[in-house]
Amino acid sequence: MTQRAETLGVAVIGTGKMGADHVRRIQEVTSGARVTAVVDVDAERAKMVAARVDGCTAYTDPAAAMAAADVHAVLVASPGPAHEAALLTAFEHDLPVLCEKPLTPDAASALRILEAERKLGHRRVQVGFMRRYDAEYMKLKSLLETGQLGRPLMLHNRHRNVASAPGWTSEMLINDSVTHEMDVTRWLLGHEITAVTVLTPTPSDNAPDGIRDPQFVIFETDGGAIVDVEIYVNCGFGYQVQAEAVCERGTARIGDGHAMVTHAAGRWGGIIAQDFVERFADAYDREVQAWVDATRRGEVTGPSVWDGYAVAAVCEAGVRALEEGVRVEVELVERPALYQ
Amino acid sequence: MTQRAETLGVAVIGTGKMGADHVRRIQEVTSGARVTAVVDVDAERAKMVAARVDGCTAYTDPAAAMAAADVHAVLVASPGPAHEAALLTAFEHDLPVLCEKPLTPDAASALRILEAERKLGHRRVQVGFMRRYDAEYMKLKSLLETGQLGRPLMLHNRHRNVASAPGWTSEMLINDSVTHEMDVTRWLLGHEITAVTVLTPTPSDNAPDGIRDPQFVIFETDGGAIVDVEIYVNCGFGYQVQAEAVCERGTARIGDGHAMVTHAAGRWGGIIAQDFVERFADAYDREVQAWVDATRRGEVTGPSVWDGYAVAAVCEAGVRALEEGVRVEVELVERPALYQ
Amino acid sequence: MTQRAETLGVAVIGTGKMGADHVRRIQEVTSGARVTAVVDVDAERAKMVAARVDGCTAYTDPAAAMAAADVHAVLVASPGPAHEAALLTAFEHDLPVLCEKPLTPDAASALRILEAERKLGHRRVQVGFMRRYDAEYMKLKSLLETGQLGRPLMLHNRHRNVASAPGWTSEMLINDSVTHEMDVTRWLLGHEITAVTVLTPTPSDNAPDGIRDPQFVIFETDGGAIVDVEIYVNCGFGYQVQAEAVCERGTARIGDGHAMVTHAAGRWGGIIAQDFVERFADAYDREVQAWVDATRRGEVTGPSVWDGYAVAAVCEAGVRALEEGVRVEVELVERPALYQ
Amino acid sequence: MTQRAETLGVAVIGTGKMGADHVRRIQEVTSGARVTAVVDVDAERAKMVAARVDGCTAYTDPAAAMAAADVHAVLVASPGPAHEAALLTAFEHDLPVLCEKPLTPDAASALRILEAERKLGHRRVQVGFMRRYDAEYMKLKSLLETGQLGRPLMLHNRHRNVASAPGWTSEMLINDSVTHEMDVTRWLLGHEITAVTVLTPTPSDNAPDGIRDPQFVIFETDGGAIVDVEIYVNCGFGYQVQAEAVCERGTARIGDGHAMVTHAAGRWGGIIAQDFVERFADAYDREVQAWVDATRRGEVTGPSVWDGYAVAAVCEAGVRALEEGVRVEVELVERPALYQ
Repeated sequence: MTQRAETLGVAVIGTGKMGADHVRRIQEVTSGARVTAVVDVDAERAKMVAARVDGCTAYTDPAAAMAAADVHAVLVASPGPAHEAALLTAFEHDLPVLCEKPLTPDAASALRILEAERKLGHRRVQVGFMRRYDAEYMKLKSLLETGQLGRPLMLHNRHRNVASAPGWTSEMLINDSVTHEMDVTRWLLGHEITAVTVLTPTPSDNAPDGIRDPQFVIFETDGGAIVDVEIYVNCGFGYQVQAEAVCERGTARIGDGHAMVTHAAGRWGGIIAQDFVERFADAYDREVQAWVDATRRGEVTGPSVWDGYAVAAVCEAGVRALEEGVRVEVELVERPALYQ
Repeated sequence: MTQRAETLGVAVIGTGKMGADHVRRIQEVTSGARVTAVVDVDAERAKMVAARVDGCTAYTDPAAAMAAADVHAVLVASPGPAHEAALLTAFEHDLPVLCEKPLTPDAASALRILEAERKLGHRRVQVGFMRRYDAEYMKLKSLLETGQLGRPLMLHNRHRNVASAPGWTSEMLINDSVTHEMDVTRWLLGHEITAVTVLTPTPSDNAPDGIRDPQFVIFETDGGAIVDVEIYVNCGFGYQVQAEAVCERGTARIGDGHAMVTHAAGRWGGIIAQDFVERFADAYDREVQAWVDATRRGEVTGPSVWDGYAVAAVCEAGVRALEEGVRVEVELVERPALYQ
Repeated sequence: MTQRAETLGVAVIGTGKMGADHVRRIQEVTSGARVTAVVDVDAERAKMVAARVDGCTAYTDPAAAMAAADVHAVLVASPGPAHEAALLTAFEHDLPVLCEKPLTPDAASALRILEAERKLGHRRVQVGFMRRYDAEYMKLKSLLETGQLGRPLMLHNRHRNVASAPGWTSEMLINDSVTHEMDVTRWLLGHEITAVTVLTPTPSDNAPDGIRDPQFVIFETDGGAIVDVEIYVNCGFGYQVQAEAVCERGTARIGDGHAMVTHAAGRWGGIIAQDFVERFADAYDREVQAWVDATRRGEVTGPSVWDGYAVAAVCEAGVRALEEGVRVEVELVERPALYQ
Repeated sequence: MTQRAETLGVAVIGTGKMGADHVRRIQEVTSGARVTAVVDVDAERAKMVAARVDGCTAYTDPAAAMAAADVHAVLVASPGPAHEAALLTAFEHDLPVLCEKPLTPDAASALRILEAERKLGHRRVQVGFMRRYDAEYMKLKSLLETGQLGRPLMLHNRHRNVASAPGWTSEMLINDSVTHEMDVTRWLLGHEITAVTVLTPTPSDNAPDGIRDPQFVIFETDGGAIVDVEIYVNCGFGYQVQAEAVCERGTARIGDGHAMVTHAAGRWGGIIAQDFVERFADAYDREVQAWVDATRRGEVTGPSVWDGYAVAAVCEAGVRALEEGVRVEVELVERPALYQ
């Protein structure tokens, strides 16, 4: 426990479902921060959200918000295509940023952000891969780091959603869902992903017409591990995220979620979470608190722009692997010293 | 989400292990509050804790702290015998209080607090029965309230600690440990406890000389339920709190704590928490946040002085049941309208 | 593996549900035995069962069956009140017997059998406490015998049935159901039960009028252990038998029955067995095979007449404890040398 | 229950570890059969085994044993290369056979057996894929057959051994271990396997020099399912066989093996079986009993020569996939009417 500086004033860019939830989180759950600005191209929505928060100003222009004296840090929760501009503006003001995933929509734009931050000369951005803040993933990571089970050889992942939103495409299973496993793989194993293969069974009758759901995605890594991901976004029965690391001398599995066990009507068992909010609420809270705490200490921690870029590159390989039905190698630029 | 009033200034009375942890919690985890005063009869310790917090004053006299302009609420974490005086002083200043358990050391003093708050005419005290804020207990409570399993008939509880602190007595298993199950029984079932029986097996070799550990404690309730508690404070292997409600049409069990499952060295399974901090950290966080939120809304929620008094009365019956080896009935005064 | 003598000819006395199932078991599942005689006061039923088995004769008189040259051993599955006569006849022919529980309906008659076998000078009877042959109970017993968890201090038991048969009384919960836990307690712990207390919550709405169901039964043992049994014979949702031994340095639990885990419709979990046949089929098979094997080796193993008598004595104490609402001590005769 | 014919006389061919265990099984566990002949090229070993069984003759020549009057059925437990000759001899005597896996060492020889049985005009052979007789696999099969979870889309398998025997090669992981998952896949899903891919992470330090262990094997099926198998034969910590079927509306998992749960020394959990004998003892018992029962009824049930042939063909594709690092398609002859 060290003495703290003054309360952190945060500008939240984007007031959709995710942004509004972050406003609530910072105001009601997070220690040491408050929302001093909200930004949305929809001026009415920005005003409505700002009106609920004492001392919060509504903006339509991110640059204007970032220039305000009571804004010390920026949380980017706008749609992916708007991230690049917002990040570059933040760099101009040298403001710390928590940027929701994806960093940007593709590897080329991610690379531009990487270059811009490199020129700035110090890290400013934490990317919102919030699974790294989930208590179970953190336990798994800690266990792997002790080395007591030996080297990780395989990582089996399950990722299931009740139903996909309208308008989902087969590619979005890779770009919006499996991105989490891409980050988790890199973070848990400390490896880069070098190749992707995507296999698709006959689609489930639950899948909307034309959507290849579920998919079975396989990563190879530069540390010699094999990683598989079952992604099934229309499973109908619940939201489940499970991971099992198979190491030389043992395995470790998370995500069973067995809090309360009931016995009734001829069955034992429990309830399955129905969405990511329920499953990962604590992880979001911990992520934002960690970002606020680090920012107030003058530090940048958490997933970096390099992580955001690497995942974008794996996504592009994954989508090609899905479309062409072949194994696709991942190509990455050399890792800059800033991210070593 | 509603607009919030200014940050709550909290005086923390008592800066021992529990008090110091609450100071850390309010400063680093809790939204909307900060510690403006710490009080300890040990002036040096108070100063040391205050020095780590921006804008926090050290006191040795609780009354002086409560009179300060930047103190809006009080968290009592001093030893049990000091609670009565602190609570009465808080009533004089009409300050909201979060009082760590026990409310006071016995039923007679608890009754005096009850009377004082009743005269005040409104509730000011939330008693620190923090299990009510544990996510699993909350799920169990919600399930029971739906009525889908029918009426609860029995409640089986397990409560195990690695080792008792030096100086523990057989009575402290009832007064310091089983108090939690007394509160949980009353809260989960909505019943008052009417009789207590305590059975003791041959003590474990782990138990310090002369301590009857484990004990098997049985409650009868005015709702016709039978409740059993295994309390074993020197089990050596971990800290475990489990509860199984047996209802007419099913059962529900919490506390298995099966987050990460490993397979290694011929065994599957996981780690058992080693203390209550690990097991109930989230519950403490949630409890203090709930108290801060309610206080800022001008409300008093959570366990009441009546709950503190009722548990004190059950404790007295429990200790007699242990000492005399017989079933002892619990006697309660009539419940005042304030606590209906 | 040793060379085996000729196939054992078994007379099955009683061809009700249990007897008929044993006939099937010996013919189809058991190695080294066949049914050469069936006995029933209902001549038609005996003939019908015999007709399905090659070389099997139907009798109405147990003595006639036991005198037949092709009868080498007797399995008694007639109603409890008929056991005493059957056992005494078997003693006259010095035939080995597997006698279904209860040995006899009360302690006095059990004592007469004890005396008769003692006069015979060697054990002839194995009592049908088949839980001793259940794989999970056997594992628990083995673990306790290693001593690695230390001395057992408590044993928590759950015993639930879907529904009681027509005509059940409150006493039958003790005499027909809890008898299993009486035997299991004595066998697992190696203690005799010295006192019984029975507590009854407000009966479940599932219980037939006038039946006190569930009950909470507490044993004290001469080894200083406390044992509790939840017996709930109209729980509606399944058949469950669970036991948790709490030892000085750890606990061990059996009976969760988690073979196949499904995830569907918002729930994870599995199926609960609906009756004892499903739960204990393997135990019955193993029990009869063990009896056949021992008999062919000229030995008598398994639960003895002393075990049958001791359980009958505990039952009588239990029924008094239920009726009078008090703790009742168990009185046993001195244990004869034959059963040491 | 139907009346049974006389006891089945069985010739056991091969008296190694597996054969000797089957002799013990038939003599001590199986109802309705006895071993009347044992055959081994090692005459001493055959005599030694025969000497322990009443009425059992030792042979060195399978044909001589099969010609004996007291031999009604044959259990082939000799090494794989000897199977073809033994099976053809059994066909000459038109004897029912239980043939341990593999049916024969390769697809070409399996095809010759297929052709020979087809000429015989009726099925005589049950292949020893004993997982079909495991209680948990049987439950999973039953559940899938109800269709209540919808169509199976994926099947995730784990297959782990403590250590490989001396002399194991990378190919044997496919040919000796994954064969079980090949059969299970075909049986559970009712699909044929159409392609195999094998991925290998950097070998575990546990793996003997030059052995690629673990491997990750992927099947595609003619029913549009994707099946993955983790095979890890030097995991060091236990023997584990798990399967998870992912269907359209839910999943089902077997193999967790959670019979007894202990809490001790800071950990909860249980013991992992150390070999297949422990894990599948009941399956072997059930398999042999099912074969004896069917044979006495004059029927042939269980895995057929077609199943043995199909698995051999998948093995050949799997070994090529491993060696060449590519996806290999499986080629099967047309399925004869006898096996429809």
